[in-house]
Amino acid sequence: MYDIIEVAKQAKETTITLANATTEEKNDALELIASELIKQQAFIVKENKLDIESAKEKRMNDSIIDRLRLDEQRINDMSTALKQLVELEDPIGTVADDWERPNGLKIKQVVVPIGVIGIIYEARPNVTVDAASLCLKTGNAVLLRGSSSAIHSNKAIVKVIQSALEKSSLPVNAVQLIEDTSRETAEKMFRLNDYLDVLIPRGSKNLIDTVVSKSSVPVLETGAGNCHLFIDETADPDMSIEIAINAKTQRPSVCNAIETIVVHSKWLEEYGDQLINALYDHDVAMRADDKVVEMRKEIPLATEEDWHTEYLDKIVAIKTVNNVEEAITHINHYGTKHSEAILSENNDHIVSFMNQVDAACVYHNASTRFTDGFEFGFGAEIGISTQKLHARGPMGLKALTSTKYRLYGDGQIK
Amino acid sequence: MYDIIEVAKQAKETTITLANATTEEKNDALELIASELIKQQAFIVKENKLDIESAKEKRMNDSIIDRLRLDEQRINDMSTALKQLVELEDPIGTVADDWERPNGLKIKQVVVPIGVIGIIYEARPNVTVDAASLCLKTGNAVLLRGSSSAIHSNKAIVKVIQSALEKSSLPVNAVQLIEDTSRETAEKMFRLNDYLDVLIPRGSKNLIDTVVSKSSVPVLETGAGNCHLFIDETADPDMSIEIAINAKTQRPSVCNAIETIVVHSKWLEEYGDQLINALYDHDVAMRADDKVVEMRKEIPLATEEDWHTEYLDKIVAIKTVNNVEEAITHINHYGTKHSEAILSENNDHIVSFMNQVDAACVYHNASTRFTDGFEFGFGAEIGISTQKLHARGPMGLKALTSTKYRLYGDGQIK
Repeated sequence: MYDIIEVAKQAKETTITLANATTEEKNDALELIASELIKQQAFIVKENKLDIESAKEKRMNDSIIDRLRLDEQRINDMSTALKQLVELEDPIGTVADDWERPNGLKIKQVVVPIGVIGIIYEARPNVTVDAASLCLKTGNAVLLRGSSSAIHSNKAIVKVIQSALEKSSLPVNAVQLIEDTSRETAEKMFRLNDYLDVLIPRGSKNLIDTVVSKSSVPVLETGAGNCHLFIDETADPDMSIEIAINAKTQRPSVCNAIETIVVHSKWLEEYGDQLINALYDHDVAMRADDKVVEMRKEIPLATEEDWHTEYLDKIVAIKTVNNVEEAITHINHYGTKHSEAILSENNDHIVSFMNQVDAACVYHNASTRFTDGFEFGFGAEIGISTQKLHARGPMGLKALTSTKYRLYGDGQIK
Repeated sequence: MYDIIEVAKQAKETTITLANATTEEKNDALELIASELIKQQAFIVKENKLDIESAKEKRMNDSIIDRLRLDEQRINDMSTALKQLVELEDPIGTVADDWERPNGLKIKQVVVPIGVIGIIYEARPNVTVDAASLCLKTGNAVLLRGSSSAIHSNKAIVKVIQSALEKSSLPVNAVQLIEDTSRETAEKMFRLNDYLDVLIPRGSKNLIDTVVSKSSVPVLETGAGNCHLFIDETADPDMSIEIAINAKTQRPSVCNAIETIVVHSKWLEEYGDQLINALYDHDVAMRADDKVVEMRKEIPLATEEDWHTEYLDKIVAIKTVNNVEEAITHINHYGTKHSEAILSENNDHIVSFMNQVDAACVYHNASTRFTDGFEFGFGAEIGISTQKLHARGPMGLKALTSTKYRLYGDGQIK
């Protein structure tokens, strides 16, 4: 039987060395991985083919097979991303806070790695390199648990990473793959509190919900995005249509794309036709409430289900409201606390919306598509947190760190 | 059947109002609670007597009964603590970070409340006021789940708090008691992910372990403290003995008291007798490894169990090591990542210890008894976190906050 505890123990044993590795040592290791990926490209592509073939045999859909595929270009991209990561500032060892107590005790809050991070993800082998490298940069050990459909690719990539680590001064066991992708082993992973400091699920809502409900290891929830665009009465019509089209169609499959347009009834009366025509021009299917349907009989009536749905496709729901309060109520009820936008020129409405909508990111007069670690300027992203503890919104390197208090005295007693 | 979901819903409904309450409104509410507690002292004491009587009938031990007891003095103390809380700075609304992207998008990271906080605690009715007031100060709603043995006291206190809230501009349902203390209701509380943003268990290791293993709601783990004092070869003998006595005996029942003294064999040879005599003088019982027992035959040999035990009593284990590395290894193996101290004049050893010991607080030349929100100068404490996510070490008001990104654009699309 696969011994996940042994693997986790080996990860934990590397944490002191990793926590004390210098920025230079960590960057050297990342550079070595970057060049090893290029050197062993043929091997990775060969192993990846096994996964692709088996996916085709299982008649998986084309978009899944495309995400699974690794070719020279994609491996080059991974390697380039590693080099960009080298350039980023290392948060470890920085002093977050520093003060002295009246009794002379000096307190320093220092940024330290979290320890061992578990990543559970689906059939995207690029996550293997991505997650491993972000963890290494922040001095964390990582246990990777990918999907069975990418097992050959993941094994190949981790082998390449470990061969690079062997040449580096970082421990080889800092990056390990859970090779057994059975449900039993996953369930054991959820109970590894003695060895694992955090679990990060990356993938579908289903995967995330399973991890959240079953894991006793603390979870960093990277959630689904049922995002809304609220077009207020005073919203500029051209800007509104441009942002609606961008937020819906620029990349419909991602979590920061919008799923529902909430529109003020007065704006709808005046510019609704223009908006709907523009959506048609961009091949967007619509579901809408009766007010919209009255105007455009060809649009099907939205059901309760629609307001909850993250389509991740060229489909949008349209909901009419009579004021900003109704918009806020709808969004707080159906939203997933990810990204929500108001387009408005009314300052009171903007303030109400920005204060009262409960989401990781609230926007005024901009597309929700900017909820992303790179767009925020973090230079890296481990996911977008929709929970409120530890990190909220796009998570860069800092989200992979903890702190530790160092107290310096000269004999203080209480 | 008790409808905990209804109670949780009512709590959630207050969150927008609470999040937008001004500091003045929140402080006014705290002042009102402070004076209402004094006005209704007789009522609280009367209800508390019911709990005390029932505890006596159940032959609970004296220290539990003492913790349960509320008298005029203790209610006065609660009221005073509330007034001190009013004086503390309100973290809500402060800007944690603020920058502009090349495309002109302005990003503001603002400190916001977490939302609804659940507190699960044992027979200490003072926690009811304490937890509720810290949550209110930070604009959070709170669901309090105390123990059945304090139910009359808790009901009385929450009634008093709510009568004060009625006179304030904060919603009454911001503070609610889960009146059903059954296990079934607790289990439901662990699954309230739709309404509850975080659960904080306060009490025994047993309680905390249950919450951690069963809750799908994120948990802020306030853990046990198996704390160590390492006396290195070069440690000043007088300072070492003074700190050892303070860290063990000043208040043995708390989590930041030490449980094991790890001592360098050379220091032991020279000053061991002095240390052991001092411990005897303070009525401390000892368990030790063979090296110490060889020296003082009357001390019983420590078992493996002893190194793991948080005695919370006037008992200490003594472990001999030959160098700082052995000390670090022992502490990282048996410690609970709470508070660990080194007494040493050797700079290399100090640096190794401070860097390599994995704990929320690491001390040089000071007693571990300072791991405490008040001693840190936070002015309040909701507990001491021994986990690495969100907050680590003593948690003040800031630990009860989250952040939210506000993005301001003028039509930005991706």
